Amino acid sequence: MGDFNLTVILDAIRRSESGLSRVELAQIVGLSPQTISNISRRLLDQKLIVEAGKEGSGPGKPRTILRLNPQGMYALGVHLDPSLVTVVLLDLVGQIVVKEMFVTPRSQEPDEVVAAIADSIEGLLDRSGIPRELVAGVGVAAPGPIDLDRGAVVGPPLLRGWVDVPLRAMVEEATGLPTTMDKDVTGAAVAETWAGAPGGADSFALFYLGTGLGCGLVLGGEVYRGSSGNVGEIGHIIVDPDGPECFDRCGMRGTIATVLEPVRLVGEAIQAGVLSPLGEEPTAGDFQEAFAHLSRLVGEGDERAVAILGAAARKLAWAAAVVGNLLDVDRLVLGGPFWAPVADFCLAVLPDMVNDLLAARGIHRVEIAGTVLGDDVGAVGAACLVLERALAPRAERLLLGG
Amino acid sequence: MGDFNLTVILDAIRRSESGLSRVELAQIVGLSPQTISNISRRLLDQKLIVEAGKEGSGPGKPRTILRLNPQGMYALGVHLDPSLVTVVLLDLVGQIVVKEMFVTPRSQEPDEVVAAIADSIEGLLDRSGIPRELVAGVGVAAPGPIDLDRGAVVGPPLLRGWVDVPLRAMVEEATGLPTTMDKDVTGAAVAETWAGAPGGADSFALFYLGTGLGCGLVLGGEVYRGSSGNVGEIGHIIVDPDGPECFDRCGMRGTIATVLEPVRLVGEAIQAGVLSPLGEEPTAGDFQEAFAHLSRLVGEGDERAVAILGAAARKLAWAAAVVGNLLDVDRLVLGGPFWAPVADFCLAVLPDMVNDLLAARGIHRVEIAGTVLGDDVGAVGAACLVLERALAPRAERLLLGG
Repeated sequence: MGDFNLTVILDAIRRSESGLSRVELAQIVGLSPQTISNISRRLLDQKLIVEAGKEGSGPGKPRTILRLNPQGMYALGVHLDPSLVTVVLLDLVGQIVVKEMFVTPRSQEPDEVVAAIADSIEGLLDRSGIPRELVAGVGVAAPGPIDLDRGAVVGPPLLRGWVDVPLRAMVEEATGLPTTMDKDVTGAAVAETWAGAPGGADSFALFYLGTGLGCGLVLGGEVYRGSSGNVGEIGHIIVDPDGPECFDRCGMRGTIATVLEPVRLVGEAIQAGVLSPLGEEPTAGDFQEAFAHLSRLVGEGDERAVAILGAAARKLAWAAAVVGNLLDVDRLVLGGPFWAPVADFCLAVLPDMVNDLLAARGIHRVEIAGTVLGDDVGAVGAACLVLERALAPRAERLLLGG
Repeated sequence: MGDFNLTVILDAIRRSESGLSRVELAQIVGLSPQTISNISRRLLDQKLIVEAGKEGSGPGKPRTILRLNPQGMYALGVHLDPSLVTVVLLDLVGQIVVKEMFVTPRSQEPDEVVAAIADSIEGLLDRSGIPRELVAGVGVAAPGPIDLDRGAVVGPPLLRGWVDVPLRAMVEEATGLPTTMDKDVTGAAVAETWAGAPGGADSFALFYLGTGLGCGLVLGGEVYRGSSGNVGEIGHIIVDPDGPECFDRCGMRGTIATVLEPVRLVGEAIQAGVLSPLGEEPTAGDFQEAFAHLSRLVGEGDERAVAILGAAARKLAWAAAVVGNLLDVDRLVLGGPFWAPVADFCLAVLPDMVNDLLAARGIHRVEIAGTVLGDDVGAVGAACLVLERALAPRAERLLLGG
């Protein structure tokens, strides 16, 4: 129980914006002043918290404020995207200390990918000068479907040859650090709850627009992972009955993952004469650049570009409405590498498009927002998972030593 | 805290299959033998539990088993469907004592509907001879969208003129009984959790095939209502890009609520010469009968009938897969008045159809099952809501007197 109380106290301190006094802590967590005092002493000894000045408006002795010590613990986060790997090192308050992004090895061979991740992690630890023993572990955000129990990646459509790869164990072995794994979109949703209002119990879906398309779920304030960790597979929602056949050969037309493929949108723009043709064998970077160019043209008011992105936004709204109507969420949050270029345009048109399609529109309006985090939301979320395991009182397995 | 402990004990007794001794209770709920003894005494005095024989295999005094007293409390449940109203009276263990179904008054006027509900309730109470003071309250399951906080029905597509009807308050006034309200599909999901394995923490979606089409959600063992009680609006999921325009004028084609309308399926069968044309101005009952006839033909192996229902099942599978892929549930449960006639046929074909469409099919198979409850699942669930408020320790408002 000592460890449990310790995490309860750490969690209460984390959730407070400006720290807490021992007296406030005792009131919030319902433990005796003596217990609070003993545990604070242990946390101070472990350098997980610091005394951060005194506070006192009324009579009596001013109270010492306890805060998390950002340098007391660290966590690594890895987002494995089929085209880009992002690695971040977070401190105890969730701030990025260092990060690195690199193109996923072209072979997509699991061994090669894991070796590249391990190299990147060593490089970041070296550069930051942070001692290995302060790193609580590595969190990996991987594309689904995953086998949560076994920490395996099971045949994601965009990673060639990843039939059943025990990624968690491989990263653990390659880095020597305790490793945890979750689906990419769930990692992103975790990051959003860390960055969002503390203690909120709202429900939201986070749409991640990356190489693939998926969504993470936070329902009633808790991350919802589903029965096997595979929530958020929304790619086959039909959003355009007149659309092209699904690239994933499901036999239907106009599925969202197909009609919103950035490659397709760029192709439409080239065909319409809005963008110039790409060179031979264009890379993922070329497409991302062309997509960003298309978005800039929209910003400049180019009518044909607006028509293309407007139609795409309409289809995105349809999928968002399917999710919103099923789950009656408070918020729909959007993020990922293909979100940033179109964020301004979409935030102008999506809120009305989506709300007009919701059955509960007469009861409450659903907020549409961009993620407060950047492209690295998946990697940050993966590292937050590690911190959460260490800090959150509900985790069964505590990474903190007694 | 006394009332809270009381409901904890009642809930533990309810969840046990064959009752519990005081010693077992103390172990399960973690209260002192003295507290258990005091509270058991109160519950026995209130006739909410009974002593149900002795049990003792080992040495020492045999233990008296405590069980819920079915006659200790009752609850009424009302399912308001646009075409049919079902009213049930449940005892404390969730068994139906009496029930009544009647066609929704043709005018669909709120006053007239509420008066008919109140009449039915009086009739059931009279017939059963159950004293009014033993009835904990009325639960109403209403078609969405609803305003959960205000207990209002807000413009459901199939109830003409129900713009903003304070149904909960109206039923409370007309019956003089404390009334609670929830969305119809949520009521059905509650009933399923009561009837299913006790203490299970699995996740499932319950598809309700009635006059409308919706789904209730139980995620991680808890009923999930969403931000405003309006979960499960799945009617606009597109399942057939070649389908007809949505009857609800959303601007899309082939939405599930449209392509699976029983009226439409019956029409297809008439056009194909499988069913004979209906008379002039057919009623809802005529359609339901024709639909049942079509299902019988499928049972007899009529190829054209099989083709029509097979195509419909395929579309239902698509919608089920959208829900299953988003939520990664353990089970998909089907129920409602239009389920029963097609249950055998669908249970033969749906499991493979749905699982083939799920992204996590390599990790786990999703079970497809019919509800263990009949057509009255909505009304039973509404009454269970009342019992749950009375029995469940998490309810803030306890209907039980101290």
